[in-house]
Amino acid sequence: MAVIVQKYGGTSVGTVERIEHVADKVLATRAQGNQVIVVVSAMSGETNRLLGLATEIMGPAPHGPELDVLLSTGEQVTIALLTMALKKRGCKAVSRTGWQLEIKTDQASNKARIESINTDLIQDDLATDAVIVVAGFQGIDQDGSITTLGRGGSDTTAVAIAAAIAAQECQIYTDVDGVYTTDPRVEPDARRLEHITFEEMLEMASLGSKVLQIRAVEFAGKYKVPLRVLSTFEDGPGTLITTEENQMEQAKIAGIAFNRDEAQLTVKGVPDQPGIAAKILGPISRANIEIDMIVQNVAWDNTANFTFTVHRNDYQRALDILQTTSDKLGANTVSGDDNIVKLSIVGVGMRSHAGIASQMFEALADEGINIRMISTSEIKISVVVDEKYLELGVRCLHDVFGLSGNNADNK
Amino acid sequence: MAVIVQKYGGTSVGTVERIEHVADKVLATRAQGNQVIVVVSAMSGETNRLLGLATEIMGPAPHGPELDVLLSTGEQVTIALLTMALKKRGCKAVSRTGWQLEIKTDQASNKARIESINTDLIQDDLATDAVIVVAGFQGIDQDGSITTLGRGGSDTTAVAIAAAIAAQECQIYTDVDGVYTTDPRVEPDARRLEHITFEEMLEMASLGSKVLQIRAVEFAGKYKVPLRVLSTFEDGPGTLITTEENQMEQAKIAGIAFNRDEAQLTVKGVPDQPGIAAKILGPISRANIEIDMIVQNVAWDNTANFTFTVHRNDYQRALDILQTTSDKLGANTVSGDDNIVKLSIVGVGMRSHAGIASQMFEALADEGINIRMISTSEIKISVVVDEKYLELGVRCLHDVFGLSGNNADNK
Repeated sequence: MAVIVQKYGGTSVGTVERIEHVADKVLATRAQGNQVIVVVSAMSGETNRLLGLATEIMGPAPHGPELDVLLSTGEQVTIALLTMALKKRGCKAVSRTGWQLEIKTDQASNKARIESINTDLIQDDLATDAVIVVAGFQGIDQDGSITTLGRGGSDTTAVAIAAAIAAQECQIYTDVDGVYTTDPRVEPDARRLEHITFEEMLEMASLGSKVLQIRAVEFAGKYKVPLRVLSTFEDGPGTLITTEENQMEQAKIAGIAFNRDEAQLTVKGVPDQPGIAAKILGPISRANIEIDMIVQNVAWDNTANFTFTVHRNDYQRALDILQTTSDKLGANTVSGDDNIVKLSIVGVGMRSHAGIASQMFEALADEGINIRMISTSEIKISVVVDEKYLELGVRCLHDVFGLSGNNADNK
Repeated sequence: MAVIVQKYGGTSVGTVERIEHVADKVLATRAQGNQVIVVVSAMSGETNRLLGLATEIMGPAPHGPELDVLLSTGEQVTIALLTMALKKRGCKAVSRTGWQLEIKTDQASNKARIESINTDLIQDDLATDAVIVVAGFQGIDQDGSITTLGRGGSDTTAVAIAAAIAAQECQIYTDVDGVYTTDPRVEPDARRLEHITFEEMLEMASLGSKVLQIRAVEFAGKYKVPLRVLSTFEDGPGTLITTEENQMEQAKIAGIAFNRDEAQLTVKGVPDQPGIAAKILGPISRANIEIDMIVQNVAWDNTANFTFTVHRNDYQRALDILQTTSDKLGANTVSGDDNIVKLSIVGVGMRSHAGIASQMFEALADEGINIRMISTSEIKISVVVDEKYLELGVRCLHDVFGLSGNNADNK
C-alpha cells in the first residue's frame, strides 16, 4: 500500500471545525487505498499567543531552549485533537510528538536541523494500519531536550518523514491551491502551474512566493521526494514539485517573482582592491542585517562602485553603518533608496534557451521601466526597479514570457 | 544541602506576573541554602480551555489517551515560562516534562498512578546546582505514551518526587495560607493549624476541606514526606502535615469538616438477610454513582432499614434506581431527602480520649439539632443533619471542642 505524507498548516487546523475537515480529508485519502501520515502545525494564532507569553518574560525576540519547550506544545495540542477527530470517525489513529518518533535534531534551539528519524517506529505504527498523526516543527537533541525547527518547520518535518520512509508523495496542504506563475493579486491572469522543478520552486520561494518553506523544498529536492502543494479548502490537483527529468516539455520561464521589501545602498569611489567587498559588507553582516543582491562595477577612475540590497526594515541601520565604513575607506559618496523592488524571472528552461535576458530587458524598456541593478543565476534573472513599476513590470514580463491565460497550461 | 520540593498550583502561576512572583519565591528558598525542585500546574483556565476544545470534538466528558496528550501541554507551557523567569534572574534552571524525568505510570489514561521515577536523572540535574522545574500531573507509561494523573495530580507529582529523593520537605503552595480548623466562611473564629497528622488531613480533605489532593496526602503519609501547605501570596509558616509521632501534645479534635452536597436515601422494611446490602447498592454503583455514608438498622419486625448518602447531583437518578430495586426486593418504602448536610469532627486524639462522641451529640442536642444519621471511623465522627443547621452545627462543635480563638494554638 502506498504511503502518503500530508501536512496541514496552522490555518488548515485553525479551529476545531477545520480539524474535523482535515480528518475527513485524511479519511478520503485512506479510502483511495493509501496509508496516511499526517503532519500538523499549531492552530493558527497559538504560536503567537505562546510567543506573547515568552515576550512578557524575556522581552522582545525571546529565544533559548525554553522557547522550544513552550512552542512545541502548540503542535501537541493539534495532534491530540486531530487524533480524537479521526477516532470519532472510526479510524484507527495514533498521535506522535517529535520525541516519541525520535526525530533527532542538532542542538540549535529555535532553529534546529533534523539529523535522523527512527523509521522503525513509523513502520511499527504503519503495521497497525493506524493513521499516524505527527507533531510538526519539533524534535529532540542528543540530550533529550526538546528542539524546534524554526517557523514553518512543519513542512520540513513532513518532507523528512516522507524521505525517511520513501513515501509516494508528500502533500503540503495550505490556503492556496498551488504555485502560481506570479501573484494573482498583481497579475489577474496568473495561472496555477501543474508542475515546477525543485530549483525553480527554490527561486520562487526565496523571491517572495511564500508557499513553502525553502528548507523543505531543498530537503525534498535532495531526497527526490515528490512534493505537492494543494489547498485544504478546495479540491484540485495543486502543483507537483518534482525533478526536472520528469518534465515532458520545459517552458522557458516558470514564473515571475517579486519582492517589495528591498532597499538599495550604494558606495561610490571605493578603492578597487582585494578585500574591499568584505570590508564594506562585514560590518553590515555583523549587525545581523541580511544582504540580498550584491553588484560591483569598476568606475572610469579605477575606483569601484558597490551596490547591495537589504530588507527595507534594515535600511536606516545599514545606511548608518555604511556611512561609518565608507568614511574609514575614503570612499566618495554613500547613497541609498528604499523605494525600490526586485523583479525576477525564474525557469530551468533558461539554461537551454539563449536570449532570455535580453528579452526581459527589452520588455521592460518598452514599458519605459529603468533597470537600476541586475543580478543573474543559472535559472533566474533579477532586476531592481523603482517601486512604482512593480505591477507594470510583473504584468509585462508575465505576458512576454507567455505565462498569461491558457499559455500557462503547457507547464 | 537540603532539597525542598515546592509545588505551585494553577492560580499561583495563572499569569506571567504571578510566574515572576513564583520565581522570586524560589530564589528566596535557594538563598536560604536549599536546592529547589519546583513542580507546577497549568496556568489557571488553561486546562479548561483545552477541555473545551476536546469537548467540541468528543462531546461532554472527553476521555482517552489523546486527552492526556492534550492536557499535558498545559504544564509544559508553565515549566517553560517559569524557567525563563528564573534564568532572567541569573538563576541556573532546567525545565523537565514527565517523560524527560521518566515519571513512569500505569496505563490508566486520564487517571494514571505513578509507578516509579528515575531519581538518577533528578540527581544529575541537582548535581549541576540548577533549579529543576517539573511539569506536574503527567508521566509516561511503559509504551512511551503520555499519561496524566487526573485533576490536581500536580500535588501527587510533587510528593512522589519528594519521596523518591527523600527531600527535606514538600511544600504545596496554594491560595490559602494553611489548613483551618473549619471553613472560615462559616466560622469566623476558625484558626489555621500549625500541625495536622496525615490521617486527620485525609479525613479533612475527603470531607470537604479541599486544600490538598487526597492521593497526594496518602502518598506523603505512606512515604513519610513532611508536607507543608502554605500561601503563594502571603508569607507565613502554613500548616505542616506530618506523622503523629512528631506531635508534642495532641489535641482531641483537629477540625470540623462538613459537606453540603449530600443527599440521603432510605429503604425501609427490606428482608434482613445476607447479601441484601449488595443487592441494594450494586445497581447504584453500576450506574457510577458514588456512595458516601451507609447505615443499616434492624427494625422491630426483623426487616432492615437501610440508609445511604450520595452526591446531591446524583440524587434523582439514585432514587429512581432504588425504587426499581426495592420493588424487586419487596421492600416497604423508599424515601429520600436532598436537604441534608454532613458534619464531621476529625482528630487522632479521639483514639485516646473517651466520650468524644457523646460530647458531640450533646452539643448538637443543646442547640436543638436533630441527628438523622451517624457514622464513625477511628479518627472521625460524622452526622447527617438538616441543611438549615449547617452553620449552627459547625459553630457549636468548633466551640465545644475548643478550636475557636486562641485555643487553636495548642495544635
